[in-house]
Amino acid sequence: MIIVLKPDVTKKQFDHVLERIKALGLKPMVSKGTERTIIGVIGPEDALRVQPLEVIPGVEKVMAVLKPYKLVSREFKPQSSVIDVGGVKVGGKELVVMAGPCSVENRQMLFDVAKAVKQAGAQVLRGGAFKPRTSPYSFQGLGEEGLKLLREVSKEFGMPVVTELMDARDLPLLEKYADIVQIGARNMQNFELLKEVGLTQKAVLLKRGLSATITEFLLAAEYILSQGNFNVILCERGIRSFETHTRFTLDLNAIPVIKKLSHLPVIVDPSHATGEWEYVEPMAKAAVACGADGLMIEVHPNPEVALSDGPQSLLPKKFAAMIKELRKVAKAVGRTI
Amino acid sequence: MIIVLKPDVTKKQFDHVLERIKALGLKPMVSKGTERTIIGVIGPEDALRVQPLEVIPGVEKVMAVLKPYKLVSREFKPQSSVIDVGGVKVGGKELVVMAGPCSVENRQMLFDVAKAVKQAGAQVLRGGAFKPRTSPYSFQGLGEEGLKLLREVSKEFGMPVVTELMDARDLPLLEKYADIVQIGARNMQNFELLKEVGLTQKAVLLKRGLSATITEFLLAAEYILSQGNFNVILCERGIRSFETHTRFTLDLNAIPVIKKLSHLPVIVDPSHATGEWEYVEPMAKAAVACGADGLMIEVHPNPEVALSDGPQSLLPKKFAAMIKELRKVAKAVGRTI
Amino acid sequence: MIIVLKPDVTKKQFDHVLERIKALGLKPMVSKGTERTIIGVIGPEDALRVQPLEVIPGVEKVMAVLKPYKLVSREFKPQSSVIDVGGVKVGGKELVVMAGPCSVENRQMLFDVAKAVKQAGAQVLRGGAFKPRTSPYSFQGLGEEGLKLLREVSKEFGMPVVTELMDARDLPLLEKYADIVQIGARNMQNFELLKEVGLTQKAVLLKRGLSATITEFLLAAEYILSQGNFNVILCERGIRSFETHTRFTLDLNAIPVIKKLSHLPVIVDPSHATGEWEYVEPMAKAAVACGADGLMIEVHPNPEVALSDGPQSLLPKKFAAMIKELRKVAKAVGRTI
Amino acid sequence: MIIVLKPDVTKKQFDHVLERIKALGLKPMVSKGTERTIIGVIGPEDALRVQPLEVIPGVEKVMAVLKPYKLVSREFKPQSSVIDVGGVKVGGKELVVMAGPCSVENRQMLFDVAKAVKQAGAQVLRGGAFKPRTSPYSFQGLGEEGLKLLREVSKEFGMPVVTELMDARDLPLLEKYADIVQIGARNMQNFELLKEVGLTQKAVLLKRGLSATITEFLLAAEYILSQGNFNVILCERGIRSFETHTRFTLDLNAIPVIKKLSHLPVIVDPSHATGEWEYVEPMAKAAVACGADGLMIEVHPNPEVALSDGPQSLLPKKFAAMIKELRKVAKAVGRTI
Repeated sequence: MIIVLKPDVTKKQFDHVLERIKALGLKPMVSKGTERTIIGVIGPEDALRVQPLEVIPGVEKVMAVLKPYKLVSREFKPQSSVIDVGGVKVGGKELVVMAGPCSVENRQMLFDVAKAVKQAGAQVLRGGAFKPRTSPYSFQGLGEEGLKLLREVSKEFGMPVVTELMDARDLPLLEKYADIVQIGARNMQNFELLKEVGLTQKAVLLKRGLSATITEFLLAAEYILSQGNFNVILCERGIRSFETHTRFTLDLNAIPVIKKLSHLPVIVDPSHATGEWEYVEPMAKAAVACGADGLMIEVHPNPEVALSDGPQSLLPKKFAAMIKELRKVAKAVGRTI
Repeated sequence: MIIVLKPDVTKKQFDHVLERIKALGLKPMVSKGTERTIIGVIGPEDALRVQPLEVIPGVEKVMAVLKPYKLVSREFKPQSSVIDVGGVKVGGKELVVMAGPCSVENRQMLFDVAKAVKQAGAQVLRGGAFKPRTSPYSFQGLGEEGLKLLREVSKEFGMPVVTELMDARDLPLLEKYADIVQIGARNMQNFELLKEVGLTQKAVLLKRGLSATITEFLLAAEYILSQGNFNVILCERGIRSFETHTRFTLDLNAIPVIKKLSHLPVIVDPSHATGEWEYVEPMAKAAVACGADGLMIEVHPNPEVALSDGPQSLLPKKFAAMIKELRKVAKAVGRTI
Repeated sequence: MIIVLKPDVTKKQFDHVLERIKALGLKPMVSKGTERTIIGVIGPEDALRVQPLEVIPGVEKVMAVLKPYKLVSREFKPQSSVIDVGGVKVGGKELVVMAGPCSVENRQMLFDVAKAVKQAGAQVLRGGAFKPRTSPYSFQGLGEEGLKLLREVSKEFGMPVVTELMDARDLPLLEKYADIVQIGARNMQNFELLKEVGLTQKAVLLKRGLSATITEFLLAAEYILSQGNFNVILCERGIRSFETHTRFTLDLNAIPVIKKLSHLPVIVDPSHATGEWEYVEPMAKAAVACGADGLMIEVHPNPEVALSDGPQSLLPKKFAAMIKELRKVAKAVGRTI
Repeated sequence: MIIVLKPDVTKKQFDHVLERIKALGLKPMVSKGTERTIIGVIGPEDALRVQPLEVIPGVEKVMAVLKPYKLVSREFKPQSSVIDVGGVKVGGKELVVMAGPCSVENRQMLFDVAKAVKQAGAQVLRGGAFKPRTSPYSFQGLGEEGLKLLREVSKEFGMPVVTELMDARDLPLLEKYADIVQIGARNMQNFELLKEVGLTQKAVLLKRGLSATITEFLLAAEYILSQGNFNVILCERGIRSFETHTRFTLDLNAIPVIKKLSHLPVIVDPSHATGEWEYVEPMAKAAVACGADGLMIEVHPNPEVALSDGPQSLLPKKFAAMIKELRKVAKAVGRTI
């Protein structure tokens, strides 16, 4: 931790800062420059991090030297993590494609989509039973009924299931029916939910919040790891910017940044990011090209009657064609699908 | 709903769109222009809103004519709502100041702050027992113990209490100990939580999400009203922008916009928005000047040892001086404190 | 400057960093911590600022201790600057209101508006002769003819004139006809323009760029001051965010921040920020309440036929009524209009 | 144009709106719905676009049906444009790589870089002679001397030159020495500059502004085309968001969006977007994968002494290795380098 003092700091203020640092069992190192005096603090920075040193009179600013997260960092674990989900490995050389309808609407539709995406190359089946909807008047999902259908269909095709958890009270249900518990973008900082899934050993797919910085994203993952669950898969799904042609702005920069900072696998959801099926394929290719470990794609047999997110859903045929193209890009960057 | 067709729409596509509209029991009105054909849809727009018409071949874009929320709108209820919280009226001529420490740390501190802010003119006591913290290693609040202290101290000073709910399972506790249940910015789209508080008649203080548009903010409130609870107070607390000198960007534009669109009262939290005590007073004045119905302010007797948000907390003395200044501004705009 | 080294820095890399610092005539101070080694650099930081130290192998990050601007800072000049513009003082106790039409359209209209705003209390006449328009098909302004009209009308009412400069080649014209040269938001980082006006002694009204940080805003002003012209007035006019109910997001946080960092006066333009006349008055009040030194307001006798920015223009009568209200707010914060 | 009337519009207001539309020679089509009356306007929308209809009493909102640009649109010219720059074709099947140092620093350095990038596969030489720098104290470029060096070296290697124009007065110089005139991000809405280059037939590389929407970006290009110059190459170079790990947020979504809306070629600059050399390669690959027509890359033989943008510059060796990898990705999407 570096503490920069104001140019007009008094002797009394200066002594008070030193005292506070020592009181925490830390060792201050003072450097007097021509324009500012700075104090470097040697020793575990965590004790200082939670101290509001900025408010001490005479302090101009406090600059952290270390990152605020630990367990998710590459410094803590240099080799990339591979999360095993019912035999499917996320984070390895082979890219993982999670595909399916936005919401589970009925058995037939789910069956048809699962069959099609499995055939095309998807390894994991996605589908929402509990749906976070911006409007209270929109379809809110089938609930447990949807979970049962997911489990049933997934067994039929031997595909692990990923589905969203919105309420900690539903966790036992998801533990029973799902292989990967998804924490949605709007719940990325629902810390109670993070702690709860952290207490299980279920794989967690953590989506980046709409306005979460990468640091906040990693800290949300840290919540889960700090409870003992290291099976976390990160998912970039677009952030909020001023641009309105796409629903969100897919931040692909985040992929190499996260890969550098963390050992956790990271996948990309181009369906939610763009909000329009025409843009899903180019952004999926870009995601693969810049190093994502997988994709999450919405597929619907008849988007114009989908109960949610129709505009961004691909037809099964289009999905299959896209996977073929993605295989070429994956090969170009030394990966497989 | 206005449906704009592509310039090269085929007869078959055109007929299909008309069919879909009629199938929903609605009446299409076609206008053929020189460059585009548009279809206006007469009748309840809600049926169409949930239909992904954009994906129908031949459709260029779909534009909503009506707002997606109802119960929160001024069209639904033209006169401004006044929420009564233990005798304190939020939304009336008199501004409401909610003040107190970020977190409840211990009885003595809470007592001292409550006494000071009450004396200075605050009507509601704020204090966190359950704390949403970006890092899992930060102080997470005293929990029920904190709630009890809040209740105890609030009784002593005759001040209603506002405190945050983070987990639906804690709602019974909050119903018992608190007068206003706060939904924090990070939970603004925690739809399960919204529904739960909607089923009570407790006053709810709903904070705007960090990257929530005003429309999304009002839709979050609509979730609560749609369950039957109309006692909602909105709170602007800063949105995310690229600027880093302040923790968030306080969007005061939102105050007159919300006042125009909705009948609900709206207050401002300049402490969290700016993240720095020096900026709290000027932004509090600005909030009052542009029509806010109240303020939420963090006060701490010794910010440099606060367990959370020290940098943005005011000393009790400073708080009292600020209220004096705010009274002048309030008077200038025809309000009182 | 603080240089943080990577945890795995080699001896050779470490020596190379020290060497580079010494080669610049600076003195490194090394602090070895438990997790990182940091190097504080004593001496003028400017030499280091332009050096890309981040690219040196072994360096994790470089943190600046000092601000990148000088002449605009309060450290350089602690007392607030007051800019005299034809007798009108910007930055003093009295707030300055600059008002007039967005574009100069014709003599009669300009005369009528000038008369009305003067009577209501405005001290400076605004009006565009060269108009920056997003579309090439929009009205681009009357050019020199507009400048002449501005000068003529301003003389009649004894009001200094502020008008925008878009092209360095027009500077001689503006020096002749205008009292304050405005640099628009879209030209805030048109560095050639900044240097040119820096070489004159004309007062400059510098508008904040749509996505400029406060640091970049102050650096743009620094361009002007560094050429010798200290007569700079800053203007906050809204930044870009994701919110769409207003044209831009007025960042009033910026007022107290700038007041703390710089000695330059700062005014607010609520007309461009909100883009809607209904929001001009509340945001003008808020601007005054939080410490702005003045306002810039668009007024048009018949907004529905205005050649530009009609939606955000006030009728003269409404403007006069607003000034009366603003006087109360100004008084409440110890200022006058 | 669709005009939505307020629910409480009066007969008089309604008639006035119709009158205004007819006065412009347009034909209103009225649709009375259950909750709103809307007026569709048949006929050329441009006349209406510049009319501030929103301010007419009784009007709730005005929604444009047509896009505000023409000449840049795919509707105007369905087939993709290919811009020929000294024999190099931008927008064809072969991707174009523009590479070189951020600033021209001296002859030897430029020569070395040009030689290396040419050998590696770059077709166009980039280098700044006039440098837009955020700080007035940073290196501002060699000016005409730099242009001469660029021309000289480019001849030696048979590579067309792209360099930035910052001041309309320097256009004759650039016409003489450069093959592509770059308009930088900070000048994207320097409309005078756009008009000037529009009057030449030089190829123009137009960079997207830091906070420009895609619509504004295309309107800036429209400025150039509307003056008669159709030789415009667009360049995505990152937009401003709240994320700080990268210098800007590269908006690759914009590539397929622009490809859909416009016939102009679009390239990507991952060096400026990320601000860090480590991220250049993954983002370059992503750009190629999602359909960009080329890349602009900064290369420097010794980044740690570069006079500008050292941190984001690649070493020549690293650049050559990257091109090899990019060739594979290009092939995977049916392109070549």
